Amino acid sequence: MSQPKFEPSPEVLSGETADIYFAHTVEILRREGLNPVATMEVFPSRSGILCGMEEVKALLSKVLPEGNREVWALAEGERMESKEVILRITAPYQSYGLYETAIDGIIAHCSGWATAARECVEAAQGIPVISFGARHVHPLVAGLMDYAAIVGGCAGCSSVIGARLAGREPSGTMPHALILIMGDTVRATQAFDRHMPPHVPRISLVDTFKDEAEESVRVAQALGERLNSVRLDTPAERGRVTPELVKEVRARLDLAGFKHVKIFVSGGINPERIRTFIDSGAPVDGFGVGSYISGAPPIDCTADLHEIEGKPVAKRGRTPGITPNPRLKRIL
Amino acid sequence: MSQPKFEPSPEVLSGETADIYFAHTVEILRREGLNPVATMEVFPSRSGILCGMEEVKALLSKVLPEGNREVWALAEGERMESKEVILRITAPYQSYGLYETAIDGIIAHCSGWATAARECVEAAQGIPVISFGARHVHPLVAGLMDYAAIVGGCAGCSSVIGARLAGREPSGTMPHALILIMGDTVRATQAFDRHMPPHVPRISLVDTFKDEAEESVRVAQALGERLNSVRLDTPAERGRVTPELVKEVRARLDLAGFKHVKIFVSGGINPERIRTFIDSGAPVDGFGVGSYISGAPPIDCTADLHEIEGKPVAKRGRTPGITPNPRLKRIL
Amino acid sequence: MSQPKFEPSPEVLSGETADIYFAHTVEILRREGLNPVATMEVFPSRSGILCGMEEVKALLSKVLPEGNREVWALAEGERMESKEVILRITAPYQSYGLYETAIDGIIAHCSGWATAARECVEAAQGIPVISFGARHVHPLVAGLMDYAAIVGGCAGCSSVIGARLAGREPSGTMPHALILIMGDTVRATQAFDRHMPPHVPRISLVDTFKDEAEESVRVAQALGERLNSVRLDTPAERGRVTPELVKEVRARLDLAGFKHVKIFVSGGINPERIRTFIDSGAPVDGFGVGSYISGAPPIDCTADLHEIEGKPVAKRGRTPGITPNPRLKRIL
Amino acid sequence: MSQPKFEPSPEVLSGETADIYFAHTVEILRREGLNPVATMEVFPSRSGILCGMEEVKALLSKVLPEGNREVWALAEGERMESKEVILRITAPYQSYGLYETAIDGIIAHCSGWATAARECVEAAQGIPVISFGARHVHPLVAGLMDYAAIVGGCAGCSSVIGARLAGREPSGTMPHALILIMGDTVRATQAFDRHMPPHVPRISLVDTFKDEAEESVRVAQALGERLNSVRLDTPAERGRVTPELVKEVRARLDLAGFKHVKIFVSGGINPERIRTFIDSGAPVDGFGVGSYISGAPPIDCTADLHEIEGKPVAKRGRTPGITPNPRLKRIL
Amino acid sequence: MSQPKFEPSPEVLSGETADIYFAHTVEILRREGLNPVATMEVFPSRSGILCGMEEVKALLSKVLPEGNREVWALAEGERMESKEVILRITAPYQSYGLYETAIDGIIAHCSGWATAARECVEAAQGIPVISFGARHVHPLVAGLMDYAAIVGGCAGCSSVIGARLAGREPSGTMPHALILIMGDTVRATQAFDRHMPPHVPRISLVDTFKDEAEESVRVAQALGERLNSVRLDTPAERGRVTPELVKEVRARLDLAGFKHVKIFVSGGINPERIRTFIDSGAPVDGFGVGSYISGAPPIDCTADLHEIEGKPVAKRGRTPGITPNPRLKRIL
Amino acid sequence: MSQPKFEPSPEVLSGETADIYFAHTVEILRREGLNPVATMEVFPSRSGILCGMEEVKALLSKVLPEGNREVWALAEGERMESKEVILRITAPYQSYGLYETAIDGIIAHCSGWATAARECVEAAQGIPVISFGARHVHPLVAGLMDYAAIVGGCAGCSSVIGARLAGREPSGTMPHALILIMGDTVRATQAFDRHMPPHVPRISLVDTFKDEAEESVRVAQALGERLNSVRLDTPAERGRVTPELVKEVRARLDLAGFKHVKIFVSGGINPERIRTFIDSGAPVDGFGVGSYISGAPPIDCTADLHEIEGKPVAKRGRTPGITPNPRLKRIL
Repeated sequence: MSQPKFEPSPEVLSGETADIYFAHTVEILRREGLNPVATMEVFPSRSGILCGMEEVKALLSKVLPEGNREVWALAEGERMESKEVILRITAPYQSYGLYETAIDGIIAHCSGWATAARECVEAAQGIPVISFGARHVHPLVAGLMDYAAIVGGCAGCSSVIGARLAGREPSGTMPHALILIMGDTVRATQAFDRHMPPHVPRISLVDTFKDEAEESVRVAQALGERLNSVRLDTPAERGRVTPELVKEVRARLDLAGFKHVKIFVSGGINPERIRTFIDSGAPVDGFGVGSYISGAPPIDCTADLHEIEGKPVAKRGRTPGITPNPRLKRIL
Repeated sequence: MSQPKFEPSPEVLSGETADIYFAHTVEILRREGLNPVATMEVFPSRSGILCGMEEVKALLSKVLPEGNREVWALAEGERMESKEVILRITAPYQSYGLYETAIDGIIAHCSGWATAARECVEAAQGIPVISFGARHVHPLVAGLMDYAAIVGGCAGCSSVIGARLAGREPSGTMPHALILIMGDTVRATQAFDRHMPPHVPRISLVDTFKDEAEESVRVAQALGERLNSVRLDTPAERGRVTPELVKEVRARLDLAGFKHVKIFVSGGINPERIRTFIDSGAPVDGFGVGSYISGAPPIDCTADLHEIEGKPVAKRGRTPGITPNPRLKRIL
Repeated sequence: MSQPKFEPSPEVLSGETADIYFAHTVEILRREGLNPVATMEVFPSRSGILCGMEEVKALLSKVLPEGNREVWALAEGERMESKEVILRITAPYQSYGLYETAIDGIIAHCSGWATAARECVEAAQGIPVISFGARHVHPLVAGLMDYAAIVGGCAGCSSVIGARLAGREPSGTMPHALILIMGDTVRATQAFDRHMPPHVPRISLVDTFKDEAEESVRVAQALGERLNSVRLDTPAERGRVTPELVKEVRARLDLAGFKHVKIFVSGGINPERIRTFIDSGAPVDGFGVGSYISGAPPIDCTADLHEIEGKPVAKRGRTPGITPNPRLKRIL
Repeated sequence: MSQPKFEPSPEVLSGETADIYFAHTVEILRREGLNPVATMEVFPSRSGILCGMEEVKALLSKVLPEGNREVWALAEGERMESKEVILRITAPYQSYGLYETAIDGIIAHCSGWATAARECVEAAQGIPVISFGARHVHPLVAGLMDYAAIVGGCAGCSSVIGARLAGREPSGTMPHALILIMGDTVRATQAFDRHMPPHVPRISLVDTFKDEAEESVRVAQALGERLNSVRLDTPAERGRVTPELVKEVRARLDLAGFKHVKIFVSGGINPERIRTFIDSGAPVDGFGVGSYISGAPPIDCTADLHEIEGKPVAKRGRTPGITPNPRLKRIL
Repeated sequence: MSQPKFEPSPEVLSGETADIYFAHTVEILRREGLNPVATMEVFPSRSGILCGMEEVKALLSKVLPEGNREVWALAEGERMESKEVILRITAPYQSYGLYETAIDGIIAHCSGWATAARECVEAAQGIPVISFGARHVHPLVAGLMDYAAIVGGCAGCSSVIGARLAGREPSGTMPHALILIMGDTVRATQAFDRHMPPHVPRISLVDTFKDEAEESVRVAQALGERLNSVRLDTPAERGRVTPELVKEVRARLDLAGFKHVKIFVSGGINPERIRTFIDSGAPVDGFGVGSYISGAPPIDCTADLHEIEGKPVAKRGRTPGITPNPRLKRIL
Repeated sequence: MSQPKFEPSPEVLSGETADIYFAHTVEILRREGLNPVATMEVFPSRSGILCGMEEVKALLSKVLPEGNREVWALAEGERMESKEVILRITAPYQSYGLYETAIDGIIAHCSGWATAARECVEAAQGIPVISFGARHVHPLVAGLMDYAAIVGGCAGCSSVIGARLAGREPSGTMPHALILIMGDTVRATQAFDRHMPPHVPRISLVDTFKDEAEESVRVAQALGERLNSVRLDTPAERGRVTPELVKEVRARLDLAGFKHVKIFVSGGINPERIRTFIDSGAPVDGFGVGSYISGAPPIDCTADLHEIEGKPVAKRGRTPGITPNPRLKRIL
């Protein structure tokens, strides 16, 4: 995965996305003439895969005074433990106080997605997992969600913007809409084959009009060697994709001489169902995961001041002073 | 709540945030010369409060051909049932096919937040609920999250941008950081009082250094009539805010002659805990809710073609033809 | 339902099917010269629908001495309560002691089946239920099982012998084997139509080769008015029949102009699933139930002596003397 | 266990016990002039002990054309796995199509009984288990049930016909009826001893009139060396037989000098209760099991065509072609 | 129930039974010359039946200065709610500080017993309940436990001292030891009848040697009209007393002409089992309850100072000042 | 632990605390002239730590005839198994029959407390546990309860009488009452320091007025080296003591230079919460346990006659004759 480029948005920089009380605080301190060098530490509420740190670094490198700052952090994609310090900022408080909301939010949301992705990837034991959930989150964060899924270990994603952030090609087959408009799965697959550039793999969605096993053999017969995969996406109304269906489609494709055609499974996939497919020996070649990743709850983060002008402090419930964590590396 | 103004972002309009296969589909249909008038219906996977429709309308009004379009929908903030059709678009397919990802995602994400907010508001039985979760979502959607919370019934929110979208004043007290830097809760509250404009209510956060009951009386004695409220935000390490704590703080404030000071509660609040406070008769004047709303799972939506050039169609698992819903109103 | 004719089998009459110790007992009493008039009462271990009493009556009328007997019982098909006396025999003990095993067994097994059938029938709220479980019991009792199912309220059954016992026409469609041999569902249905007498309803099994919705429309188009029903029997590997599938097949048949074609559902049906279909408003016209009825556990029965030569007796755990039950009617 | 002789009944051979649609199918195929060589495979819905194959073999050897048949199967009493092919028939379809109902039913019912018996036998860890459930099934299958219990590992059974099928002596003590008529347990046991041939073991049932411990010592004192065992069958109204009761009876018999008298336990016995007796060290010498075996649910079986005239076929949900199973042996 | 006389023990008065820190506290205050009039309130941790207040009153009337004291309380046997103030003492602190441990302990322990007794009495719906648990508590509190059980509603108790405290006759039958020594239940009952004064009811314990039903009839035949009751106390090893056993014993006694003999049940009795007897219609005439009452957990009480020299005070977690409770009555 | 001296109370010796039927029994036997040498065995209903045997021995040594007695028992503090014989008395029955109630009750109550104490001690893995529950039991048994807790492994107890019985110094800090009367925790602690003899450790209770962490540092600053410990006793209304609170107090004390001050935890402590503190690494120096020990249910004991004049006997449900137990030692 290549290094993404994050650019803080004007609304974040202006403090518009912040909780109002941080604006108040900076204003009050300014009027009181207080701008102590303060150390803030951030920790997550549960363990998971850290994501969002690159974006946070881009923000901090813009707002912290260059000569008077020190930032330590875990790296993008690293495992983080519950309550472990993952970010420590030391700088004049007025330079960064306004951004506590954004820093917490970026890491919380992205780490939530990355962590859910990792669960799927671990369940899949090497079989590729593709993030398909762009349709379940607001488009403003669809790309970040897909980027986080790839940080978490997904082999690809369906959104163009997410793939670009992660330096990958977007993945995808065809929607039911294309098949409904073309009126037949075979005809839609042939049109796809006709017009798409050669590097786009021919993957046919085979549950629109006919039984999946029947349709799989039909599209294989129509495209022959050029067919890369079939995608099974059986709706809940038809009982979802089952391990037995995958086995049968495999058997019928093999029997008809199409051993090269891969089988891709989607529709309500989550780690538990992935394990069911794996445990029952269903020959799946790829999983498409939607809302399990895109709807993952953020991993809430907390930021606390632990030192002010070199003096240990803490609110009730926290321990005053720097919390040691040898895993942190200096990033600014 | 005033009418918000939504402006589709360039990344949405260009299709970058879309699933790649919709771009492929539109491309293939263009090359095949197919652009039928098609009817797409959208339904949610579970019941809840609809939010995001205003933003979707702004998008559709920009992309659908004015003379050849018909859009019916439920209104922002209306209750929607599981699997009920909430949006029906009839227009040439090429004009909107690329936006299925965005339409689903906007509604899914915003409705998830609005629905969770509604649950809190209903549990609170008239006591105001404020959205405090901006710190738990990515700043690009923090404002939308807060806007959705207010659509769901919250009385206010903490982010500046969310409050602006919803046409409200942002709500907030002061962070622990201010108190830690000032070194004392009374001193911090006095500084706040000194520098903030008169319309900002004086709400003191009373759990930083001392026991909440003790600190409450101290700040009340310092500000007298000008103190609007105290906010109890006891951390989990100190057992969170309990109904008994609220009762005791109320009793101690009353005993000291500060019956006018209100009590605001935050920290891990959710509908179940709200009900516990209400049922035990704790005299809470406002609830601050964070991750229960901000971390609510999106309400996944599905879009299906049901008519093409006036002919009923549907993929397997769906019923061909228009799905009647008398609650829909024409919006475009 | 006409009156069935039951004929005790030679193995029952000879005592071969009895527990050996009853043969011993009769032998010992004979040698001891003891043959008291004894009253035996039978009660079931749980409540249910009584079945088997007609067969028991046929047996008793053959073995009890005509001038010295009195038999009281509940009637075939009546509800019986847990531990209620359902049969009371007064006669010389040697005349019936050998048949305790058979009497208990007949009632236990048949009542188990009838009771399970009644549960399905009550769940179905007037929609006909057909017993399809002959294949899950030994052929020697397949007819009795189907007879009991009809006593319990089923509208019909699939076995020839069961239907004859109950005075009904056997019900059935066609097996997958016919369709597999004919190579196509439409062709198989047409052959069925060609060769079966007019009184046999044309019911096509539509899940063998293609998707059920597609196949339903195809067979309806082939047979037109002559098609009575389609039977949905989707295997577990394809997610079983769902309420949504029934609704969709109904919609597609209606859309294609075949409102007269009924929909029959089978495959793992039980009272709970019947209720799910009913509650979700799926337009089912008949349910085929297999192992829920055929595999129902027998309702174990117990026979106790309560009077010997007019003197109340009982083993420990039972109350000596006749147990009053005004619901009993004299049958012999 | 000697080899049983099974003779297909006329009702099975005539197809009366079959599902009507198999008769229809054979009739249609005959009229269509279709009689392909077809391969049918049978598999069970869950794992267990196979029973009924001998009876199926007797049926098939009668109906399949001798020169044109091939039958492979697992053997009576072998363990079978869930969904494993346990029987494969290749022959002209018309010769056996009518018997699918009977074949499935025989194996399902008998394997259900054998499997439950095996569970008891395994729980008993070498202590003999006797099948006592003839009274809970219809007399037409009482013998088959007891035969299946012995196939499953039981040491004996109480029905005369079941014992004969399995080539054993029937087991049994005496019923409560004998004791009630004789008026005293000791007197009944003495009459039993007087009249029964020497090879019948003297087992006294000791819970009819008095406490079991008291009665056990009384009958032991009456019969002395000739007493083989006492049977404890305490009814549920007296709390059933408990491990402590067995220990106490053992202690009291031993104390009175009757160490040779064995203790046999019955009444609501199942694997879980057997384990409780074993785990608590109760000195049980034999268990009598009734409805746990006799009321065991059949192991439903499914028969599918997998080849027609050498061509792989299958209905949806199954894999076309022969399913390999090296454990099968050719039986016809 | 007559008024009991409680006399504080010397160990309580001297403070030996107190927590050491109360002795320390009184000592420190004395040395500091502090003896403020203080108000202490006591509340229970859960709801129940108040017991022990008479004993507490006896203690307080001895230690509080007569002219300078005010004590308000709920009355012995009244229902108390969770956290309700049940006792309020206003007096110079040094006069009673040492007795906080004793006051809490007396009420906690006695109320625990009374509350458990009440649960049994309510379950029994008018059938007398006798406290039989003296053998499960230390003899120093056996009388208090039985007294508390009678405060809770029991009709009697087995300990002599408990009965005296409560102004009742002690209840009891005979122990197994008497019967074992006499060698026969009938003989033991006859000896009892011979030597006991006429006012002691003849209640025979009928489970020592023989089955309860058999023994019941035997003792009834031996004592005739003079037999008051039989007590069923079947041990766990024989399955405890069951509702069916009671019914059968009743039936056998009635059949033998002993309708006047009552049936008394004991052995592991608790409210749930009492309800089972009542619900199944078992004709029980009295329940003997042991460890459910005697082993009931104390209802922990807490004592807090709420006013010192007329000034409201409270520790954190409690509300300063007198807690109003209109149910309290002045007792000193 | 030194050897306690137990003196049977007059009420026990007179039989007043006994069940009335034992008095009856001894009276009847006396009148019948029966005084056989009888062997009584006592066993507990569940496993635990034996306590009370010393007191029982004191009683028996007083009542059994010196030349005609033999008593075997397990020792105070030994582990006893469920149903294991823990005491065997052989003597003329009239000499001890009256004391069965007391013997059972002493062992039951004391062993219940000792066993609960042992659970806490084992959970604490070497960290001292102090019994603080005197306030939850009747003062007549408060000392015995604390003695039993120490037999179970507690390092100390709070009641003066309990400590004396166990030969220890009583443990304790100060009550909230002292602090409320002194008006400030520091002032109360200083008064304690001023007036208490040097051997009493200075332990300050730090949750009365202010937050525990703040108060801990204040009292440490006031007493310096002389402060032994702080006790955290946070009420449920403030969320009880949490592991995090202990860690924070430790950190704040250390930071302020008071590493020698120990932390003592109380308030609703039980084995499960002790394990939570241990598992989370909270640096607790001592646990105070109240109602978990004081409210422990007695371990009900049963006494049975097993031999009369050398002849094995037993009631139904028990085995006649002496029950061998090599762990018993002769004590009288």
